[in-house]
Amino acid sequence: MRVRNPRTGEYDFEFQECSPETIRSTARKLSANQIAWYRSGIANRIAVIQEWKQVLISRKELLAGALAEDTGRSWETTAEVEWVINSMDKWCLVAKNFYDQHNEWIPYPIVTVLSPWNFPLVLSMIDTLPALLSGAAVMVKPSEVTPRHVMVLKETIDLVPGLNEILCITPGTPAAGAIIADTSSLICFTGSMASARKVLQAASKKMTPVLFNLGAKDPAIVLSSANLEMAATAIVKGSTTNAGQSCLSFERIYVHASVHDALVDLLVAKSKALQLADTHLLKGEIGPIIFEKQVLTINTHLEDAFASGATLLTGSRKCEQINGGYYCKPTVLVNVTQNMLVMQQETFGPIMPVMAYDQLDEMIEMVNSSAYALGAAVFAGTEEEALAVAQRINAGSVSINEAALKAILHYGDSVSFNWSGVGGLRIGPENFSRFVKKKYFHF
Amino acid sequence: MRVRNPRTGEYDFEFQECSPETIRSTARKLSANQIAWYRSGIANRIAVIQEWKQVLISRKELLAGALAEDTGRSWETTAEVEWVINSMDKWCLVAKNFYDQHNEWIPYPIVTVLSPWNFPLVLSMIDTLPALLSGAAVMVKPSEVTPRHVMVLKETIDLVPGLNEILCITPGTPAAGAIIADTSSLICFTGSMASARKVLQAASKKMTPVLFNLGAKDPAIVLSSANLEMAATAIVKGSTTNAGQSCLSFERIYVHASVHDALVDLLVAKSKALQLADTHLLKGEIGPIIFEKQVLTINTHLEDAFASGATLLTGSRKCEQINGGYYCKPTVLVNVTQNMLVMQQETFGPIMPVMAYDQLDEMIEMVNSSAYALGAAVFAGTEEEALAVAQRINAGSVSINEAALKAILHYGDSVSFNWSGVGGLRIGPENFSRFVKKKYFHF
Repeated sequence: MRVRNPRTGEYDFEFQECSPETIRSTARKLSANQIAWYRSGIANRIAVIQEWKQVLISRKELLAGALAEDTGRSWETTAEVEWVINSMDKWCLVAKNFYDQHNEWIPYPIVTVLSPWNFPLVLSMIDTLPALLSGAAVMVKPSEVTPRHVMVLKETIDLVPGLNEILCITPGTPAAGAIIADTSSLICFTGSMASARKVLQAASKKMTPVLFNLGAKDPAIVLSSANLEMAATAIVKGSTTNAGQSCLSFERIYVHASVHDALVDLLVAKSKALQLADTHLLKGEIGPIIFEKQVLTINTHLEDAFASGATLLTGSRKCEQINGGYYCKPTVLVNVTQNMLVMQQETFGPIMPVMAYDQLDEMIEMVNSSAYALGAAVFAGTEEEALAVAQRINAGSVSINEAALKAILHYGDSVSFNWSGVGGLRIGPENFSRFVKKKYFHF
Repeated sequence: MRVRNPRTGEYDFEFQECSPETIRSTARKLSANQIAWYRSGIANRIAVIQEWKQVLISRKELLAGALAEDTGRSWETTAEVEWVINSMDKWCLVAKNFYDQHNEWIPYPIVTVLSPWNFPLVLSMIDTLPALLSGAAVMVKPSEVTPRHVMVLKETIDLVPGLNEILCITPGTPAAGAIIADTSSLICFTGSMASARKVLQAASKKMTPVLFNLGAKDPAIVLSSANLEMAATAIVKGSTTNAGQSCLSFERIYVHASVHDALVDLLVAKSKALQLADTHLLKGEIGPIIFEKQVLTINTHLEDAFASGATLLTGSRKCEQINGGYYCKPTVLVNVTQNMLVMQQETFGPIMPVMAYDQLDEMIEMVNSSAYALGAAVFAGTEEEALAVAQRINAGSVSINEAALKAILHYGDSVSFNWSGVGGLRIGPENFSRFVKKKYFHF
């Protein structure tokens, strides 16, 4: 398979997708080895993960370099690598506590992880690490859009004795994913609704359970009492990190009418201060749109908004092609209405559509009417005032006076609402309960 | 819809299935009322369930009478009605404890319960009661095979002020179930794998989560040290209750070769002591096969077993038609092999295929090779010896020296393995976590 470079538009990388036969024979091998891995105990599994951590640290620059080529962006890449390495200690500690309490729980033998291209390393490891620690063998299929870093990751796996006997990572298309899923006893899927439906159809053949982490349309809610400077900083950061290609991005901003203009002025100023990293990876904050097809979605949402009366205050009227890559500037829209695509569907770009509200109840109804409900943030003068609103928002995780705290703090059990996710707690100590089945003995 | 009577074979009952329009407008009504139901608090919800309990007690005989006509059997009917009434106190107590601890959890607004014909009352109420207590509105679609008792149940609901605003129960075909499921935010399904696949396909349109309770092929394992008299009593009871039409039935018996003949003699003697209740509902222990199509499955499994060398020691070579109903005597088979249908697929009849084993490891491998893994039982001379084997069985619930303790004791969180179930703990205090989503506030 030939792979496009998001900065140049050139197909400058190639990899060989696994054949169905190889996938099936690998699954058989993993399945045979899983029993010993589970029986080896939690202390041994933690030791193996810790050894892997040391190898990853020693190859950190190689990994980050390949991941930067995959994604075309810089600081988010470094953050991703650090996040994953740090998460290994966290998961080991949580796993120890969990299994000390629940030693009769039994893991699904083979867990399949199907992961996306937007945070390719974090979003494959977020399921792989706890699944491995649970005693499962794991087959990971990262997106075919960002396969370069996977080659480095494979090398690190081969350097840890025994690890490649229970962990296989191989990039591929959704078709390869379907075959991998077919060999699995539990599927973890992170990606789009369209792909999710296909996975579910495939899984229904064997009634294989699937844990879904799907799209999002997270709102930022700014009450009249909010510190606007602080809110604007958080919103611009929350909307533009990874050029908006994040499930935790703010994709719609609801602000009380009395402070609408003041907030918008701040959003515009802060957006203008951010530069595209179009000439050099390390120059500027906003990287390219990683997946070419996403450009069409962003453009369609923008076009629809303008056709229905939205006004562009700063940013891009459509994605701009520069040196072969596609870029979208931090974009602030006003005069938006709830029925626009940009307020309804996942855009996955650095777009801030801002809508004024008068009545709190009406605003909360609009917020809760979304098909998605992953996270949200509320900005207010006091934490108490913010919490009172947060309690009425249908979303698994609500940040108070900050953006995407879930990703930074990474604790607290929560479950996505509506279409954002199905099946269990992904962040927080209860994560492990997703990978095991509980057994009870009746006397 | 005309409905067959399982004792006479006559179509002596009729009911009107809800139209798709009625279903959709009912769902809208329930959805609108659910918010107030949830906000009314756990104390109020418990009070409503307690009031319903009093109404049910006052109509107990009517309900049991209709349910006996639905199912054609007597003592299991009384037990079902008692079980459901008693479970109301239990769920109220558990709900109080659960919501005192988890007051930030938010229910799915509309829960759909699709329930089967084998224990029609228990298996609709087992999901409905905790869902209601969680603050959800509930639409129940019991099987169209056993609708008579539903009419009585509807009357009891109408007698409790407010209850019919958040609870609707209407029997219907799988087609009606698909429409009900389409209006739902969470689906609880109990039934066959074939129907489950259809539900999952329908649910995948809106990615509605589905909790499945599917088939089973529970083994009884008898070690050489077991008290054979006690084991035989439990096995015959566990295999023949409800004429074997139970997901908790023993459907395969593994016994150590040294005690095979002695156990088989006891099984035959105890089976012969049970009478068909073919002439009168209250005369004899074994009722009819409730669902006509199930007769074909039982006959196919028996035919296949005999064609492959199984020997009938007592019971029916095939289901017998008596006075219009179909009956199967408690049936003991020997010379069975693991590859026979009767050892592989769910039979749902009072059949005990007995297989001798020499090596413990080989037996456990056979036990765990099943596509199903709901429960199991181990019989041994000491609880320690039984537990050592139980720990190696892949099943959510293992009874020690008894049959189906899960149904009787009804505590202990467990999860079904393999095809027997997907999605959460049904019995035990964690049941409630199935109906709510957890939310976390990050400061």
